Amino acid sequence: MHRLRVAMVQVNSVVGDLDGNVARVRSALGEVADCDVAIFPEMVLTGYPLEDLVLKPKFVADSRAAMETLAAEGGDCALVLGFADPGPDGCVHNAVAVCHGGDVAGVYHKRQLPNYSVFDEARHFRAGTTPQELYRIGGARVGVAVCEDLWVADGPVDRLFEGGAELLVVVNGSPYHRGKLAEREATVVATATSSGRPLVYVNLVGAQDELVFDGGSMVADPTGRIVARGPRFDEAVVVTDIDVPEVPHAEGGLPVVEVSGAVDRGDPLVPAPVAPLEPMAELYGALVTATRDYVVKSGFTDVCLGLSGGVDSALVATIAADALGPDHVHAVLMPSRYSSGHSVTDAESLIAEQGIDGMTIPIEDAHVALRGLLGLDDLSDADKGDGLVDENLQARIRGVLLMALSNAHGWLVLTTGNKSESAVGYSTLYGDTAGAYASIKDVYKTTVYDLCRWRNTQAVLCGGGPVIPDPILAKPPSAELRPDQRDDQSLPPYDVLDPLLEAYIEGDRTRAELVASGFDADLVDRVVRLVDGAEYKRRQTPHGARVTRKGFGRDRRLPVVNRYRG
Amino acid sequence: MHRLRVAMVQVNSVVGDLDGNVARVRSALGEVADCDVAIFPEMVLTGYPLEDLVLKPKFVADSRAAMETLAAEGGDCALVLGFADPGPDGCVHNAVAVCHGGDVAGVYHKRQLPNYSVFDEARHFRAGTTPQELYRIGGARVGVAVCEDLWVADGPVDRLFEGGAELLVVVNGSPYHRGKLAEREATVVATATSSGRPLVYVNLVGAQDELVFDGGSMVADPTGRIVARGPRFDEAVVVTDIDVPEVPHAEGGLPVVEVSGAVDRGDPLVPAPVAPLEPMAELYGALVTATRDYVVKSGFTDVCLGLSGGVDSALVATIAADALGPDHVHAVLMPSRYSSGHSVTDAESLIAEQGIDGMTIPIEDAHVALRGLLGLDDLSDADKGDGLVDENLQARIRGVLLMALSNAHGWLVLTTGNKSESAVGYSTLYGDTAGAYASIKDVYKTTVYDLCRWRNTQAVLCGGGPVIPDPILAKPPSAELRPDQRDDQSLPPYDVLDPLLEAYIEGDRTRAELVASGFDADLVDRVVRLVDGAEYKRRQTPHGARVTRKGFGRDRRLPVVNRYRG
Repeated sequence: MHRLRVAMVQVNSVVGDLDGNVARVRSALGEVADCDVAIFPEMVLTGYPLEDLVLKPKFVADSRAAMETLAAEGGDCALVLGFADPGPDGCVHNAVAVCHGGDVAGVYHKRQLPNYSVFDEARHFRAGTTPQELYRIGGARVGVAVCEDLWVADGPVDRLFEGGAELLVVVNGSPYHRGKLAEREATVVATATSSGRPLVYVNLVGAQDELVFDGGSMVADPTGRIVARGPRFDEAVVVTDIDVPEVPHAEGGLPVVEVSGAVDRGDPLVPAPVAPLEPMAELYGALVTATRDYVVKSGFTDVCLGLSGGVDSALVATIAADALGPDHVHAVLMPSRYSSGHSVTDAESLIAEQGIDGMTIPIEDAHVALRGLLGLDDLSDADKGDGLVDENLQARIRGVLLMALSNAHGWLVLTTGNKSESAVGYSTLYGDTAGAYASIKDVYKTTVYDLCRWRNTQAVLCGGGPVIPDPILAKPPSAELRPDQRDDQSLPPYDVLDPLLEAYIEGDRTRAELVASGFDADLVDRVVRLVDGAEYKRRQTPHGARVTRKGFGRDRRLPVVNRYRG
Repeated sequence: MHRLRVAMVQVNSVVGDLDGNVARVRSALGEVADCDVAIFPEMVLTGYPLEDLVLKPKFVADSRAAMETLAAEGGDCALVLGFADPGPDGCVHNAVAVCHGGDVAGVYHKRQLPNYSVFDEARHFRAGTTPQELYRIGGARVGVAVCEDLWVADGPVDRLFEGGAELLVVVNGSPYHRGKLAEREATVVATATSSGRPLVYVNLVGAQDELVFDGGSMVADPTGRIVARGPRFDEAVVVTDIDVPEVPHAEGGLPVVEVSGAVDRGDPLVPAPVAPLEPMAELYGALVTATRDYVVKSGFTDVCLGLSGGVDSALVATIAADALGPDHVHAVLMPSRYSSGHSVTDAESLIAEQGIDGMTIPIEDAHVALRGLLGLDDLSDADKGDGLVDENLQARIRGVLLMALSNAHGWLVLTTGNKSESAVGYSTLYGDTAGAYASIKDVYKTTVYDLCRWRNTQAVLCGGGPVIPDPILAKPPSAELRPDQRDDQSLPPYDVLDPLLEAYIEGDRTRAELVASGFDADLVDRVVRLVDGAEYKRRQTPHGARVTRKGFGRDRRLPVVNRYRG
């Protein structure tokens, strides 16, 4: 039996920030000095995903140089570092280096490149073909693999075990969606138990554009028990001692690169347990991480948003306050002639409750002026586009005001639309969709309520009152763009709509399948038509946190001109 | 020697419109009845590119059924029809069927799947692996390949020639960019001469989202002479007789499917020659095609745009008038307090000259109202964001007005920004970038002038006056968003800027390479910073016609959060 001291280092890398990422790795080195090996996430030195940055040869060369710089500084603890490696003929590899004692002991090139869902690795990388090898670290033969390598049957991981790996290390940039941790854990456990070898799984944390990386690194022992965990959504250095059963190195096994011998350290070090997150806590954590990282990594500190008195903007304001601090959140009330009194007072109580910065700009003057320019008061109803012109006008005046505040004060604008609205096109382009980041873009309306209730419960458990005033949650949803408007005049109730949307979007069910599973046929036709017809709007909306299996972004790329109505 | 009568059928398919595309194929059948074979473009039955429509199994099944329907109707002329073919395990093939006499004689699956630039075929299709075969049509052994298959050395096309193909047929969905036809022709000629076999190259026409397919189908004889051509950008049935030298079918050659025997028709049929297009005619044709198809395929007839009196909106109005007819173009003059008198009169003369529908909505009232709501008159200069707030306000009021007209009348909004502006972020999000289609999004400012001059010359050659009044071309570019503003106060002159942008964007040169090639180092730093920093704006702008080797769209996918400044 070998006993290895292993550090799982969850780093929040920034895409393109090679110097910064080197500094992030360096800052962890003090905590890992006594370890046999410190394992960093996939592409830790470049950030992930890089998209077409990979096509810039100088960036890739700089990435290799960053890895070599860190390798040259190295000490007794081996470092496993992800980077982009220039290959021959301009091709690039998604690579991981094993560094020790000032040298690069070896470089592995990811062999399985995912090219589905949110992944485009066949566009950017060449699959690795150099022979696999093992690294003797702390006396044990260690095999190294990258993310997708783990998920493919009869793939690179099987070759490592057959070739004599005693411990498997997998570095990952595995994006979050609801339920993803359980999928990962099942695969990690299945691999550990079927091979009888311990497995260390290290994941990235932090957000990049629409993707959120949730950390949740883990060590499985050969019986499939998870013996160490990293936190979710937070940077961390998790040090643990792993008992690695010895395995004979059969003839014809993979070559072994000697890195470091066994160190006797006495009593085994066991990390503190990490409590699992309940579903709403996990989702809320993802949304806060995504909003914070988009703002901070873009070089901003403050955000503004329109606070309507409704539940969506209430949730986004709360997420932003938790992400950036309430004094960095500027909530703008922009009542129109159709806004109800309770909307204003509800929004004001939220501002007071959370201590965020509030201001009020009634839009009536601009509304009157624009109606006048368009001659709206003189138009027949038919020419007004069924009231749509006037409704969109109000939403767009608010968009203009928020963008003006953004320009004047350097605040990023957060949009407040949810996935149900985005799905059916219940939004105004350049109006409520105008902004830099869409914090709850991938959250259905019913889940918006669940999140608000969960957040209020947390506040109460911490001894305070609800941060989102109850009246906001109690009143029926309304856009308040015409007198006595309510969402359910245009749309089915959200508890009917949302399951249908989820089955069509995430489940990719056909019309016939949706009807067969019990949805009303007319409703299915109407909703499918709305979703398909709103593609043009979604193409012009900002990035937002992806938290489901299929968001409206990298993982759902439909043509805009598209006559298929299957 | 075999003599085959071949029809090249350039079809303007619509993505997702299976019934419509079947009808488009059927409408050509009368003209090809006397031919041995009629060759349609890649994916003619589905439209191209399909993006994630391919991931809908019912769509793919419907596509196969559409092919079988046409095959069952078939007569003596063999049909070569592209479609999406369902494979095992949910995989899909980019396929082409050879149909004859009511049957499907064979189906070929594209073997080389492009996954670079604007192409994502590795995401959507499985590469073909079924054995290649030849089809005896009109007595000759015909090999069939799809687009990328032709471009790969030692690939499927070489296998066809080695296996005994006497004539090569390549079906294509090859998108236009400036200079692309010459690249295609070089490859077609090189393949014909090196193999000593004639080659028929059939390409799609029409636009789909940002891609424009330019037709330009061609036949090369074994000496490399182009003996027949299809028109550019137009649907056409081009019938030609091709002399196919006989080649012995060596043992071990590819299997031959018998389709049809030789027909004796007497004198050879030679199609009328097609004059080559000069560069500006070609580019203008691409822009007109793209704008027309986006509007028409989306189910609209009319467009509106802001006509400023400047050169960009003048060109877009002219393109739209040529694409849709002048009475379907609604030009809106929206002067502000900073608009010059000549801008209004220049715009009015363009409207009069072309007979398009014009209207004027001065924005002053809304400008005053919004300035008042924002307290702009009371703010210190620092809080006004250096005048940016007020400049953007004017652009956004115009965006709001155009969208209101769009909502009221069912007109699509065309945006008028050019590539130089989009590159450096010289635009207002939700202002001048607001709209459904960006007709000149991929055209540099200097080329905007070239196109205007070319279009005026055409008008004069046809006996009229210039359609774009000369003063529009003569005055210095200005956004007219503050007193006496001129573009060259913020940007270098366009004849300096545009070559630098092209070298950085299309050429992907590094900072060091740009300086080494003679650009001023400070200018390079500034422009690279502007281009990199404007990515967030480009992500929210509408589709527009891609006409260069690298547009701001599918072929340049950079992260928004990105700290690399290499």
